Amino acid sequence: MENRNRQVLLKRRPTGAPTPADFEVTDAPLPDPAEGEVLVRGIYLSLDPYMRGRISGVRSYAQPVEVGAVMEGRVVGEVARSRDPAFREGEYVLGGYGWQLYSAVSAKGLLKLDPAEAPLSAALGVLGMPGLTAYVGLDEIGKPRRGETVVVSAASGAVGAVVGQLSRRAGTRVVGIAGGSDKCRWVEAELGFDACIDHRSADLGIALDRVCPKGIDVYWENVGGAVQQAVFPRLNDFGRMVMCGMVAEYNDVEPRPGPNLTSAVRKRLKIQGFIVSDQWQRFGEYRAMAAPLLKSGELKYREDIVDGLDRAPEAFIGLLQGRNFGKLVVKLGDDPTRRV
Amino acid sequence: MENRNRQVLLKRRPTGAPTPADFEVTDAPLPDPAEGEVLVRGIYLSLDPYMRGRISGVRSYAQPVEVGAVMEGRVVGEVARSRDPAFREGEYVLGGYGWQLYSAVSAKGLLKLDPAEAPLSAALGVLGMPGLTAYVGLDEIGKPRRGETVVVSAASGAVGAVVGQLSRRAGTRVVGIAGGSDKCRWVEAELGFDACIDHRSADLGIALDRVCPKGIDVYWENVGGAVQQAVFPRLNDFGRMVMCGMVAEYNDVEPRPGPNLTSAVRKRLKIQGFIVSDQWQRFGEYRAMAAPLLKSGELKYREDIVDGLDRAPEAFIGLLQGRNFGKLVVKLGDDPTRRV
Repeated sequence: MENRNRQVLLKRRPTGAPTPADFEVTDAPLPDPAEGEVLVRGIYLSLDPYMRGRISGVRSYAQPVEVGAVMEGRVVGEVARSRDPAFREGEYVLGGYGWQLYSAVSAKGLLKLDPAEAPLSAALGVLGMPGLTAYVGLDEIGKPRRGETVVVSAASGAVGAVVGQLSRRAGTRVVGIAGGSDKCRWVEAELGFDACIDHRSADLGIALDRVCPKGIDVYWENVGGAVQQAVFPRLNDFGRMVMCGMVAEYNDVEPRPGPNLTSAVRKRLKIQGFIVSDQWQRFGEYRAMAAPLLKSGELKYREDIVDGLDRAPEAFIGLLQGRNFGKLVVKLGDDPTRRV
Repeated sequence: MENRNRQVLLKRRPTGAPTPADFEVTDAPLPDPAEGEVLVRGIYLSLDPYMRGRISGVRSYAQPVEVGAVMEGRVVGEVARSRDPAFREGEYVLGGYGWQLYSAVSAKGLLKLDPAEAPLSAALGVLGMPGLTAYVGLDEIGKPRRGETVVVSAASGAVGAVVGQLSRRAGTRVVGIAGGSDKCRWVEAELGFDACIDHRSADLGIALDRVCPKGIDVYWENVGGAVQQAVFPRLNDFGRMVMCGMVAEYNDVEPRPGPNLTSAVRKRLKIQGFIVSDQWQRFGEYRAMAAPLLKSGELKYREDIVDGLDRAPEAFIGLLQGRNFGKLVVKLGDDPTRRV
């Protein structure tokens, strides 16, 4: 074990798009777990769009990251030292904290991971928070029904990939929207979406009309911006717009105008937002459903693994621009379960 | 019985605000009821904001009124001739059709009215479509809970007045928004709202902050425009926006921008539209609930009765500008139940 703990701190709140200068990579003393805590050696750190909200000063459902504090993030790791009888050294856990190599966290918040069930990193993506997000948003708001058309933005991303695959299992026509032909090819060929539109190349409205001949019943909103403008007027009567995120607008300094809502009356639309952290109690239910599908290959995913904590700021900046391809994860240290 | 039938036709589709020249008052032959039909002599005609949608060409949930056709509207009247065994001459009914003095309509669509239960005209307002609108919108979307704050736009109108009173009965703080001090006074003093804001006089945002110290949990949207802009950012976490109508924008030639929806994620907002005609099956349930409250004086209402069919176009134009005070009704002919 090293005796220093590398960390990424929030140096200042970004205005607009974050830059590397908004973060500071530093070394701190190794944390000392208290009674009931566990020292986790991080193996994988999850980078997710919601973090953009945490580093702005906007009133929100969660505490912002303070300037000078370690950046927030969920970590999969290995128990390096345990001061709780429920955990032993060498066990794998979900629940380490922050953009740092080591964290001392309460044992109560940890979930043991079985590397035979799924790769450890999956607990940050397809079997983790993003997967649960897809599951509860569809179950509580989207409610896709057989024969309907579901459109998913950021379709190759951690959430979108699961949304589309679960929607297909519900018997819907699923159309993805993604940035770039590589992503679209993968979404169609690997994930099995009925179609995927590259929002960078096409007139999105014309493309949507072509691949959604019966209109759009459910729109899974991950991005906002021009994609939202193209999809919204194409929602069918009784359409549902699942408001999961609007990553294309997170760096905006001034909010853009949204869609005129007159059609929400005429078409009886439902536009509803949600936050997965309100639904942690369903995590076990989701994992019980999804883990067997993952193992059998019926549920597919892709990871974009960046090597080394020092590259986290740059990877996060790229995430907000859609530069990742699949669930973005930072490898913090050695993964003994993937050594060959 | 006259042998001519005075009617108001749609002469042309208005662009922007309708003008009297968009309508034509004419005389037609008295309609002849077929087997299973009833000839209704109209006593009261309901004028409602939704009619603006019916005379534009926009795709909608209902057929538009064709140019040259009688304007759509619901009528309370007296059976003048019956060719259905279930109805006798002289009975009062809800279900006459259109901006005209007489209509021949299927007996199946008629509801008998008991003048001892409530004034006949109430079947067009507080005990009619607008009342049912308030009831189902609250029951299915708004779901006001004890201690919450409900804001109702067009608070003195046919729908808003019922929304506010039912919400108060659910134990909420109710704040109305209306145009003019007379309306606001009546909403507070007669309907018993906790407060009413005149959107014409005040800085609406400041006024809302003052009378909604705990924010806004439910917003009943009747108007759109500047009122929506002021209310939307003040919705609390888990706020519900019941999209009933946006009358302030119905005459717009180009849609205005709407609110940016990023906060819908962060605050887990629900923005949902509905159309009362999807819910006619609940009409009996609503009337059974509301009629006793009306009789006991616990449910209050106000009508703005305009005398004579010829004045319907002018009254409808005024409705879209908020010139009416209470449920707007056109008196088509003698009401034998109100003769003294």
